[in-house]
Amino acid sequence: MDLKIGVIGTGGIGRDHIRRLTDVVTGAKVVAVSDINVDTAKKVAQKYGAKFYESGEDVIHSNEVDAVVITSWDPTHAGYVLECIKTGKYVFCEKPLATTAKECEDIIKAETKFGKRLVQVGFMRRFDRGYRALKNIIESGKIGNPLMIHACHRNLTHIPSHTTDMTITNSGIHEIDISHWLLGEDYESGQVLTVKQNRDSSDKLLDPQIMLLKTKSGVRIDVEVNMSSGYGYDIQCEVVGEKGTIRLPDPNTVLVRYNCQRSYEIYEDWSQRFIEAYDTEFQEWVNSVKNDKLAGPSSWDGYIACVTADALIKSRNQGKAETINVGEQPKFYK
Amino acid sequence: MDLKIGVIGTGGIGRDHIRRLTDVVTGAKVVAVSDINVDTAKKVAQKYGAKFYESGEDVIHSNEVDAVVITSWDPTHAGYVLECIKTGKYVFCEKPLATTAKECEDIIKAETKFGKRLVQVGFMRRFDRGYRALKNIIESGKIGNPLMIHACHRNLTHIPSHTTDMTITNSGIHEIDISHWLLGEDYESGQVLTVKQNRDSSDKLLDPQIMLLKTKSGVRIDVEVNMSSGYGYDIQCEVVGEKGTIRLPDPNTVLVRYNCQRSYEIYEDWSQRFIEAYDTEFQEWVNSVKNDKLAGPSSWDGYIACVTADALIKSRNQGKAETINVGEQPKFYK
Amino acid sequence: MDLKIGVIGTGGIGRDHIRRLTDVVTGAKVVAVSDINVDTAKKVAQKYGAKFYESGEDVIHSNEVDAVVITSWDPTHAGYVLECIKTGKYVFCEKPLATTAKECEDIIKAETKFGKRLVQVGFMRRFDRGYRALKNIIESGKIGNPLMIHACHRNLTHIPSHTTDMTITNSGIHEIDISHWLLGEDYESGQVLTVKQNRDSSDKLLDPQIMLLKTKSGVRIDVEVNMSSGYGYDIQCEVVGEKGTIRLPDPNTVLVRYNCQRSYEIYEDWSQRFIEAYDTEFQEWVNSVKNDKLAGPSSWDGYIACVTADALIKSRNQGKAETINVGEQPKFYK
Amino acid sequence: MDLKIGVIGTGGIGRDHIRRLTDVVTGAKVVAVSDINVDTAKKVAQKYGAKFYESGEDVIHSNEVDAVVITSWDPTHAGYVLECIKTGKYVFCEKPLATTAKECEDIIKAETKFGKRLVQVGFMRRFDRGYRALKNIIESGKIGNPLMIHACHRNLTHIPSHTTDMTITNSGIHEIDISHWLLGEDYESGQVLTVKQNRDSSDKLLDPQIMLLKTKSGVRIDVEVNMSSGYGYDIQCEVVGEKGTIRLPDPNTVLVRYNCQRSYEIYEDWSQRFIEAYDTEFQEWVNSVKNDKLAGPSSWDGYIACVTADALIKSRNQGKAETINVGEQPKFYK
Repeated sequence: MDLKIGVIGTGGIGRDHIRRLTDVVTGAKVVAVSDINVDTAKKVAQKYGAKFYESGEDVIHSNEVDAVVITSWDPTHAGYVLECIKTGKYVFCEKPLATTAKECEDIIKAETKFGKRLVQVGFMRRFDRGYRALKNIIESGKIGNPLMIHACHRNLTHIPSHTTDMTITNSGIHEIDISHWLLGEDYESGQVLTVKQNRDSSDKLLDPQIMLLKTKSGVRIDVEVNMSSGYGYDIQCEVVGEKGTIRLPDPNTVLVRYNCQRSYEIYEDWSQRFIEAYDTEFQEWVNSVKNDKLAGPSSWDGYIACVTADALIKSRNQGKAETINVGEQPKFYK
Repeated sequence: MDLKIGVIGTGGIGRDHIRRLTDVVTGAKVVAVSDINVDTAKKVAQKYGAKFYESGEDVIHSNEVDAVVITSWDPTHAGYVLECIKTGKYVFCEKPLATTAKECEDIIKAETKFGKRLVQVGFMRRFDRGYRALKNIIESGKIGNPLMIHACHRNLTHIPSHTTDMTITNSGIHEIDISHWLLGEDYESGQVLTVKQNRDSSDKLLDPQIMLLKTKSGVRIDVEVNMSSGYGYDIQCEVVGEKGTIRLPDPNTVLVRYNCQRSYEIYEDWSQRFIEAYDTEFQEWVNSVKNDKLAGPSSWDGYIACVTADALIKSRNQGKAETINVGEQPKFYK
Repeated sequence: MDLKIGVIGTGGIGRDHIRRLTDVVTGAKVVAVSDINVDTAKKVAQKYGAKFYESGEDVIHSNEVDAVVITSWDPTHAGYVLECIKTGKYVFCEKPLATTAKECEDIIKAETKFGKRLVQVGFMRRFDRGYRALKNIIESGKIGNPLMIHACHRNLTHIPSHTTDMTITNSGIHEIDISHWLLGEDYESGQVLTVKQNRDSSDKLLDPQIMLLKTKSGVRIDVEVNMSSGYGYDIQCEVVGEKGTIRLPDPNTVLVRYNCQRSYEIYEDWSQRFIEAYDTEFQEWVNSVKNDKLAGPSSWDGYIACVTADALIKSRNQGKAETINVGEQPKFYK
Repeated sequence: MDLKIGVIGTGGIGRDHIRRLTDVVTGAKVVAVSDINVDTAKKVAQKYGAKFYESGEDVIHSNEVDAVVITSWDPTHAGYVLECIKTGKYVFCEKPLATTAKECEDIIKAETKFGKRLVQVGFMRRFDRGYRALKNIIESGKIGNPLMIHACHRNLTHIPSHTTDMTITNSGIHEIDISHWLLGEDYESGQVLTVKQNRDSSDKLLDPQIMLLKTKSGVRIDVEVNMSSGYGYDIQCEVVGEKGTIRLPDPNTVLVRYNCQRSYEIYEDWSQRFIEAYDTEFQEWVNSVKNDKLAGPSSWDGYIACVTADALIKSRNQGKAETINVGEQPKFYK
């Protein structure tokens, strides 16, 4: 029996997820869509044989919908997630889970009260083959305790409306989540360092930035977050342990010998780099919903990312390290 | 509507394909199975909610079956394929298409007479991301005309029953097909060179062997076929063009710095190396059957591989190059 | 005519340089040696056909000596260098130039007063083929302005007497000099971050440490300085520019496919890693002395390294970033 | 005491060796030169403070000359080498030792009669760090017996006067020597395969060619010899053993991330690729002459290369494999 899914938000990422759920993922069917842009939503509904609904709430409450995917405008995420919890439906929410820590806390309270994990947040890197291999090696103990992570997140270029804060909340947030996940521990403090401005970047933007994070056990993470690498979309991560280091694989592109160079292609954007991770993310989510046991990134993970991003932004504005205080992870989320 | 598939042969590779069609591929459902090992087939039928049939012919003729997958014992392939053509059903046949050139010719005749391509042969490498990238670059013209291919096929080790001929017919056959496909042209002659014996290999086996092929336009292909590499499953391919060369990517495993080495894992066998290629192969086959238009490796490709392997074995036994004569490719298969 | 060289200090590094000047470098001859360990110095003198002198001062003042190499105990460096300047002889001084900023300033004053550069400091990385290639690419403008340097200095393990400060003054000092040289600009501030302790390192040692540096134009440099990498001697450096990044090459060791791994050897210590750089350093020094025009690292570079290391140590002890103030670079040293 | 060297032939390679012997190699001095181009030779003599001689024989017989370097026109090599043996002087002869097997045999007879090795042939690859590392690993036994070598020799492009035979005698000859040296055994047979013509190569030239060699124990060597790679000067070599494979390192150039590519520079010609090997070759030759004990490639190695090249050319012209018969290696050369 296919899992019947309602999708709220039929913009670019929403349509890509609908295509994925239809053509790539097995065992799922998109049956309901809505969007504030009614025309787009209706066209998508028609194309995929789904039903159009006037509002996200209608999608959530529809008897035809088993589980919900939220890909709408960021500020609407928290409200839809809370509604899903109220109706006891599984919900996959693209990051961010919410735009304020307070909203995240509300979600955590509601979900805890409901008594079963219903929410998964779209941190797709956890489903990337490379990051999973890193985590497996860390957990094997082969390199001893991790001591440092050196990472970088580089976009080829940024959209005109990109802001200094979005570097942290949209791009850096993936790094916040993945280091937390790789290390299996919480952050104690964080800092953002400003860097000499790239002349090819917007004048209004601080770009690049360096995020520094420190975990409770003292692991240091440094992340270059660079919206104007000028050369491609490039994600790097090296975990330094007591006995060795491990590095995230680059995509395995063809080795070309040409024009006095040995070279490998670098992708231009995230959609090529992480397409497999997205596919795996949704397949595993569908499987886990059918098995009634969520395993992916939780509301708690969404909360940590939100609080950490807030601290980093404050640090940048104030020019010093900030304490990150998320309290103890509730048993419910362990 | 899911494509209803009957699988003939529920050995290791058959069961893996059933799992794949069920859990990974979208739009397909395995509804019928049979095997000479009745117990196994019944268990598989039960596990996947399929129906057990007494014979392969029963599977083929079942009204519930839209398309057939053949993963039975090699010598039975040709017979089942011919039966599928007779009933006008699409059939996916694991390599080899047949064990003799004569059988391949019979299949080609029958399929041509039927008037529509029904047969796809299991040369999964054509669905590997790396080989596809090589083909794209060749076809882009970037490296000019291909002039040579240097390749190697290395197994970690071989099963005790492996024979000198099987090196060509089971392993080398993938190389025969993929070079033919990459270059888009037919072979003119071939030769097998014997090599100093690996002491870790069986005494009864000539291992490794080197296959030399020459296409009609003069492209030279050399392939090390090595059943006892001693270190892993490793597939290498470099295409040398007039202006540059391109090399098949290695799987993108983690870079580990440890114990005075920078190292990357090499897989132990083909199932890890080509798992994605198998997944893609079946998804595209299911899609093309549903669209009533086959695009994968054809009976003609199966025939070429068979004739080429025969010539190579004869060359090895006679100690000189052999002509490979497959005639002109029929329009039907272009 | 060979340049006649006197060497003060015949410990390990001194003897290695004497061998280098004798067997590798052309146009030089070691004619004089001294050491507080008289026996060793006499043996070395005999082996290389040089004359033993009772004191470093005697070496410096000898009429037979054209130029001096100082490889004695760190605290004696400044005194010998000043004596060389007084006698107007060229002097190659192993790093550090001096152990205090004050001594460096005295040397700069004396040399400036003398009116010609006489002093070269042993920052051998500037002669490494890889770093030189990085500098060439930076200066070509290909990657635009450099914005960040990510570097690491990893030793396999450390000697028992290694101290927390030595991590900065002995190992980190190379990184301080090389980033300064690559970027061609001075530092504005620096900070040391402490990191979770490596359990394989000494309890008395803070290890690893992270050095953060910021240049006057805002370039950020982060350097992992790790005395207990556990796996080898490994020097990494990536320069991030506005349009691309460049990375220091690893030594070009053999690619070994073995035991399910593709691997490259990593050296165990600096002597293998930088042997060519040392050879080039001394050949170029000898050539420049003969041409009466020094080009290598100057007293000013030694001073900057000293002041920067002091600031980093202070920063670590005080837990915050420290200003680095070296004033304007005198014309004399440009 | 510097070794006093006479150089016969002051063309491009001769002048480069004179520069090397003067500026790079320690313990040597070029004191005598001659060339059929008298003007050039006189200029070189003046530049390096050497004496000009009217003839190569005069250089050889000069009392001021301890050892001779031959970099004259190929057909004159054998005569000068024989003259050196007659006078009992060490001689370094650029490859080829001679242009006929008969001349090589004469040299071997004369040298054997003289009773001490005097001749070294300029196979500089044996002094390349990478090939030496390959040989060390082979001799360590780590990869078991070598079974195959896959190699390629690629030039960016060729000079207009380049001929089909020169591909073997000028470029392929390095591959003939290095495989022989790596494996430590003689060849039994060889064959040249012609390949589809590169349209960017000369019409009069067969280019590329593939050399196939088989040693007495059955090791197979295949070498692409490609005068028009179109992209750079590229030397590749993989040795396949029973338990693993080893591959010659590429030059360690900077990793550049730029324009959607990760790339490494490939050199344009041999002078960059093998500059270190040439330096090491001459330093070791000078050292061994001073120690009165030659260790580099011998007349016997020159003879094997000559006989093998002849057999390969004959094979290409006749279209089949040719036996290579060099007899037993004399004890004198072991």
